[in-house]
Amino acid sequence: MRLEILCTGNELLDGSVVDTNSPYLMERTLALGLPVLRKETVPDDLEVIADAMRTIGARADVLIVSGGLGPTTDDLTVDAAALAAGVPLETDEAMLAHIKERFSRRGVTFTANNARLARVPKGGVAVTNPFGSAPMIALKVGKAEVFLLPGVPREFRGLCDQEIVPRLRERVLTAAGHTHLALRILKTYGIPESHLDELMKELPQRHPHVKLGFRTHAPENHLKLFAEGPSPEDAGARLAAAEAEARALLGHRCFGADAEEFPAAVLASLQKSGATLALAESCTAGLCASLLADVSGASRTLVSSAVVYQDQAKTQLLGVDAELVRRESAVSAPVTRALAEAARAKAGATYGLAITGWAGPGGGTERDPVGTVYIALAGPRGLVEQRHRFGFDRARVRLFAAYQALDLLRLEAEGVTP
Amino acid sequence: MRLEILCTGNELLDGSVVDTNSPYLMERTLALGLPVLRKETVPDDLEVIADAMRTIGARADVLIVSGGLGPTTDDLTVDAAALAAGVPLETDEAMLAHIKERFSRRGVTFTANNARLARVPKGGVAVTNPFGSAPMIALKVGKAEVFLLPGVPREFRGLCDQEIVPRLRERVLTAAGHTHLALRILKTYGIPESHLDELMKELPQRHPHVKLGFRTHAPENHLKLFAEGPSPEDAGARLAAAEAEARALLGHRCFGADAEEFPAAVLASLQKSGATLALAESCTAGLCASLLADVSGASRTLVSSAVVYQDQAKTQLLGVDAELVRRESAVSAPVTRALAEAARAKAGATYGLAITGWAGPGGGTERDPVGTVYIALAGPRGLVEQRHRFGFDRARVRLFAAYQALDLLRLEAEGVTP
Repeated sequence: MRLEILCTGNELLDGSVVDTNSPYLMERTLALGLPVLRKETVPDDLEVIADAMRTIGARADVLIVSGGLGPTTDDLTVDAAALAAGVPLETDEAMLAHIKERFSRRGVTFTANNARLARVPKGGVAVTNPFGSAPMIALKVGKAEVFLLPGVPREFRGLCDQEIVPRLRERVLTAAGHTHLALRILKTYGIPESHLDELMKELPQRHPHVKLGFRTHAPENHLKLFAEGPSPEDAGARLAAAEAEARALLGHRCFGADAEEFPAAVLASLQKSGATLALAESCTAGLCASLLADVSGASRTLVSSAVVYQDQAKTQLLGVDAELVRRESAVSAPVTRALAEAARAKAGATYGLAITGWAGPGGGTERDPVGTVYIALAGPRGLVEQRHRFGFDRARVRLFAAYQALDLLRLEAEGVTP
Repeated sequence: MRLEILCTGNELLDGSVVDTNSPYLMERTLALGLPVLRKETVPDDLEVIADAMRTIGARADVLIVSGGLGPTTDDLTVDAAALAAGVPLETDEAMLAHIKERFSRRGVTFTANNARLARVPKGGVAVTNPFGSAPMIALKVGKAEVFLLPGVPREFRGLCDQEIVPRLRERVLTAAGHTHLALRILKTYGIPESHLDELMKELPQRHPHVKLGFRTHAPENHLKLFAEGPSPEDAGARLAAAEAEARALLGHRCFGADAEEFPAAVLASLQKSGATLALAESCTAGLCASLLADVSGASRTLVSSAVVYQDQAKTQLLGVDAELVRRESAVSAPVTRALAEAARAKAGATYGLAITGWAGPGGGTERDPVGTVYIALAGPRGLVEQRHRFGFDRARVRLFAAYQALDLLRLEAEGVTP
């Protein structure tokens, strides 16, 4: 079964909008064992859209089209589909009534151009869109079953999940000899991509129906497992076996799977024992606190963060000895240690975690050049200290420092000895 | 002159990689007055790549191809180009020597498969790539001038700027009757997109050669001005006239243009008078500090941020009366005011800026439902207070709260009365 995508819209060709609709669909159809074989991007031009539909309609079984379904005169996808299919446009009166009712319910005036939303190429079908006004339209162009979806990401994604994926799954389940896929993404921190590759190199031999993929989301590295099988259950069982082995090889470096995010994993580790956290952030300057606070319920665990950015703030907010800061420099093991201990004591928290460093491009010393980061973690089992070098890019140094500090905390809370 | 893009790579069709190379090129060619007219994405498949090149080569004048130039057997773009052009592959001995020398200089072993990097379709030219090993290749397919570029974004972008844009500019400058473009992006905060549209509605009448575009980067809204002219100077002069009028209409709501970022604009406003800043962040939890600290040189201005996340932290870090917090609730005008004043006093800073609020999904009260945010700014001219409602999405409430607080600070530092 040959699946293709056609994206329409000038904004996709002038660099102002990055197409995120296609990757969303691609991930989901791939999980059904249906890779997207080709994607074409065309401007808001009636003839060009129709020409692309005709070309793809001659070779594909299913074509998903994104964009150009709105009420304005530069929304041309329905017109182009009728042209490509060689059929006239008709108005779906039931859909028109539904759209008018939707406008009235929302207190929006129904202007005449909105009647365009109920036009359907003869022989096609309009499907109600619960996420917006423009319906999805299904029709045949050449040998391809074509689905026209709105380009608004929220609507595209909603219709993808609700209409497209179930239809494709149905087709796939009834197709003889179709290969089913099951997919798992294991997320890791603290292992370079090349080492991850090396660590997993024997897995495909023991699991011949499971393919591996690697993806870097710095500073995370993700391992993708694609299992194939003659049935969904079979693919699922093969995936589970390979996943168990991969997780055993990764150990504590795997912090989560699929939609699980790193900050939530850190908080979950702390919440197992009801631990609380006070931060003292200099070079990360609130990034650790902000990453954690993005997780709903973080306020149960995160007491505070003292962003002690200038030297004097270390004394003002946490009472660290100004003479120590002057003598040792703000970026040093003794000051970082003092910050971790003061943050913990002042908040009465289970853990005090401090980060200092030279994020660059200015600053740095001979002993501690730009990119140097000190981390100190004070907790019930005493003090853990680390020193790192994270390169020269300011944003990268700050992000890597935040991850490394939070991962140290996660491992300490899990009782893992690094 | 007809310009198209062809992207190759399985990773662009399985949802794992979003193509950012094309938008980079598209923005730059558009600024030359050369819109990209169509973009095709194909897998690592020799026949499919060659077929796409042949089809595009029959209609385009210039084709930029991204990806598939590496040394491994799934890098097929050079083979496909030779196939499409109907010519054999030859080895460019000078390029091969250069690549070997590059490997040796970097202390990397030159394995046999790297010789693939020096293969050129007969009649084509290999151009040294200063950003990586694989050279750029220029050749003719059909009527199109075709440029093969590596897919690695750093290499693609480097070669774009250094090789592609200058060649296209040269062609454009010598083409009779070519329309030149000049582009400016004006960045605004505090004006909804529909109001921006309304505010600018008479601009095109007074500047008939300038087109407007709108782009939302929540919570920023951007206004794009595209000026056309028979020469680059002419387009530039038309742009300057329209930009001056647009800036006058926008006033202080425009914080910058093109690559200028909001946090840098906030810091620049403070640095004009050498002002310093101490933050007290509850619901934003370090986001304000982190946004500012991403700007190089922020440490001259940002003294500290007390991320007083739990109630007790407001007392522990800034000495705010625990009884006041208990009585008024942590999310309230009096507590926010006390935090701003305490942050300012403790740091001895010019400004103290405090944010409290209910980010959701939990929390909120009848008086202050989820999405409610209090902001207080203490400074030399006294105290400014605001209360906002920012909807129900946690990440959005935090981001909008941070922007609103920092914008209040920017306007106060600029002496603008809101």
